[in-house]
Amino acid sequence: MSSAASVPPAVSSGANARLGIIGGGQLARMTALAAAPLGVDVTVIEKAPLSPGAQVVHRALTGDWSDPAALARFAQGLDVITLENEFIDADLLRGLEETGVPVFPTWGTMSLTQDKLIQKRTLAAAGLPVPEFREVTAPADVVAAGAEFGWPLVLKARRNGYDGKGNFTLRSAADVPAGWEKLGGGRVALYVEAFWPFQSELAAIVTRGRNGESVIYPVVETIQRDHICHEVLAPAPVSPAVAARAADVAGRAVAAVRAVGSFGVEMFLSSDGRIAVNELAPRVHNSGHYTIEGCVCSQFENHVRAVLGWPLGRPDLVAPAVVMVNLLGTRPGTGRAEGLAAALAVEDAHVHLYGKATSAAGRKLGHVTARGRDLAEARERARRAAAALSFGDST
Amino acid sequence: MSSAASVPPAVSSGANARLGIIGGGQLARMTALAAAPLGVDVTVIEKAPLSPGAQVVHRALTGDWSDPAALARFAQGLDVITLENEFIDADLLRGLEETGVPVFPTWGTMSLTQDKLIQKRTLAAAGLPVPEFREVTAPADVVAAGAEFGWPLVLKARRNGYDGKGNFTLRSAADVPAGWEKLGGGRVALYVEAFWPFQSELAAIVTRGRNGESVIYPVVETIQRDHICHEVLAPAPVSPAVAARAADVAGRAVAAVRAVGSFGVEMFLSSDGRIAVNELAPRVHNSGHYTIEGCVCSQFENHVRAVLGWPLGRPDLVAPAVVMVNLLGTRPGTGRAEGLAAALAVEDAHVHLYGKATSAAGRKLGHVTARGRDLAEARERARRAAAALSFGDST
Repeated sequence: MSSAASVPPAVSSGANARLGIIGGGQLARMTALAAAPLGVDVTVIEKAPLSPGAQVVHRALTGDWSDPAALARFAQGLDVITLENEFIDADLLRGLEETGVPVFPTWGTMSLTQDKLIQKRTLAAAGLPVPEFREVTAPADVVAAGAEFGWPLVLKARRNGYDGKGNFTLRSAADVPAGWEKLGGGRVALYVEAFWPFQSELAAIVTRGRNGESVIYPVVETIQRDHICHEVLAPAPVSPAVAARAADVAGRAVAAVRAVGSFGVEMFLSSDGRIAVNELAPRVHNSGHYTIEGCVCSQFENHVRAVLGWPLGRPDLVAPAVVMVNLLGTRPGTGRAEGLAAALAVEDAHVHLYGKATSAAGRKLGHVTARGRDLAEARERARRAAAALSFGDST
Repeated sequence: MSSAASVPPAVSSGANARLGIIGGGQLARMTALAAAPLGVDVTVIEKAPLSPGAQVVHRALTGDWSDPAALARFAQGLDVITLENEFIDADLLRGLEETGVPVFPTWGTMSLTQDKLIQKRTLAAAGLPVPEFREVTAPADVVAAGAEFGWPLVLKARRNGYDGKGNFTLRSAADVPAGWEKLGGGRVALYVEAFWPFQSELAAIVTRGRNGESVIYPVVETIQRDHICHEVLAPAPVSPAVAARAADVAGRAVAAVRAVGSFGVEMFLSSDGRIAVNELAPRVHNSGHYTIEGCVCSQFENHVRAVLGWPLGRPDLVAPAVVMVNLLGTRPGTGRAEGLAAALAVEDAHVHLYGKATSAAGRKLGHVTARGRDLAEARERARRAAAALSFGDST
């Protein structure tokens, strides 16, 4: 739909709840698909029409979700509002909540997580293991932090970073001017983190209900390439003791920000079994897409249950091993998938295409999840199906 | 959307295929939800706005699918058309196909299945076991058939029956005038079937691809109440030999009508292990709703794959036992579900609400599927969740 005026009113279709999602990307899409069986009417708002989310809901509003007036129109007739990204300002969410529509996660939770410096302080204050970090307001602060924490050091934007964007690794004091310039230091608020010598990266989805009840999904290993999640292995090939410690850390991290909904907790694992929280995402998360076919109740359905105040479903795996491989664009062109028939021929491989109109290098266009008797089998299936698919052909 | 004029055009969102579904009920809804992950844009057409299907797609057309002009508007820009009910006239489908948009199942298949007398003749000609049957054009024909086949005898409308509507059981010749009157004999084409002394009812979904490749889902037992499917037990608690024979019959029945898509085959099982085909439904079927959580690839996803010419997914169960319980309305009122929180608290129970605006006695408003280690556990869970839900409250 091309304008707010043409958006159908939020007529109840007899369902229990009318849920609004701020944002219309693939996370909104998968959340809406999980909400439908529960009889929930979903409305999305996104800046462009025909977003991945808009394609699967009856009511989609085209509008700028950073504009309070557009948000107010969006909120009309909704029972609960949630969000699919951490970039909407917490103050806007507070404004929405003051109009009488509950927003989950709350603006309070968002104000503790969307600024990564405040997020780190919150986690550290709760006794959770995090890399050393420090606010920096001038290049000299960065040099001083390097002298104290050691090099390399990671310079980070406090807000709006994702998939490696907003991060700059400094190998020595000589790199500081380039990093400061690149990330817009002076105009953009920055902080630094000590480089944490990880052997692998772990993650866990935690869904926390409005009543504080929570479920912790299996701890997974995430394989990154160029700072973008490439594969997720469930369960992570780590010892039960490490998995249990990581699950405990994830659960406490999510409780520390008083989360409501499904949150992704990214963690580092060192070669000697120590764990640190890398980042908390206040939303459904790429490391949890495997839960759609992999778990009794997906991160998306549990997110819907949590924000609507309903009991949470179980996070248990339904197969011995589940592997997810992201489908990333490699070049500009159409978002149409080539090779779908070959991908669908792979046993127990589940293809998810996001319906994006255009491809671009590194753009997340879909994912494949495969189950198997062990990680090797699931990974081989997921990789084979993913390898069959490509995007960007102009024909 | 309230009129065809306000329907967004079938703009490609970068996906591979644009699929139209004739009908907007729960079967269209669940098919659309299965199509979305494959990047398929779905359009539905239904007589009333805000249908269960319309709620989960971007493009919904309100129009009468028995009107050729409405169908032609609907077909514009679509790659393939399918249907969710057997009531659309085969000749209308032929007309659609002549406009250049492939329709699956084909009008040829529909002309062999939607008239139940022709369906029975087709199955019998293929050597499949069916109850004895005969065309009747006058009450005297019915009396003669009863004398030959024995009583009771079932008088049936050749078209448009479902859930027991269009059937009348005659205990003796004395019942013939009442049955003839009730079903509109003389105006409505009728036939009779011998009563087949079944011990239980079985069913199987078969998905058949455009290339004739097919997959047969596990044979299930269906429990009917008042001719409406009430529970489905997967796998059916029968011997492996019986299950294998039923699967073979189902597969041959679907091939006999040259099906493309997911079809439901309802069968009778006698106490001495004989099987007869009761009815073939040329569409996804209530006896296969359990496949959403119960099988590697659901009947809905496989239907989409079949009609689009893509490889079929595996029909294997993902748990030892899966039970589905239908959620039927008991009284007029709203379609809003009461008791959802209690239902969602049941372990591994999956609630599906169809978003219908109003309830009515016997109306299918949703279903619950539960998995378990055995049928008893799955059935207890599904029944407990279903019992928590009710519809029709006016508040």
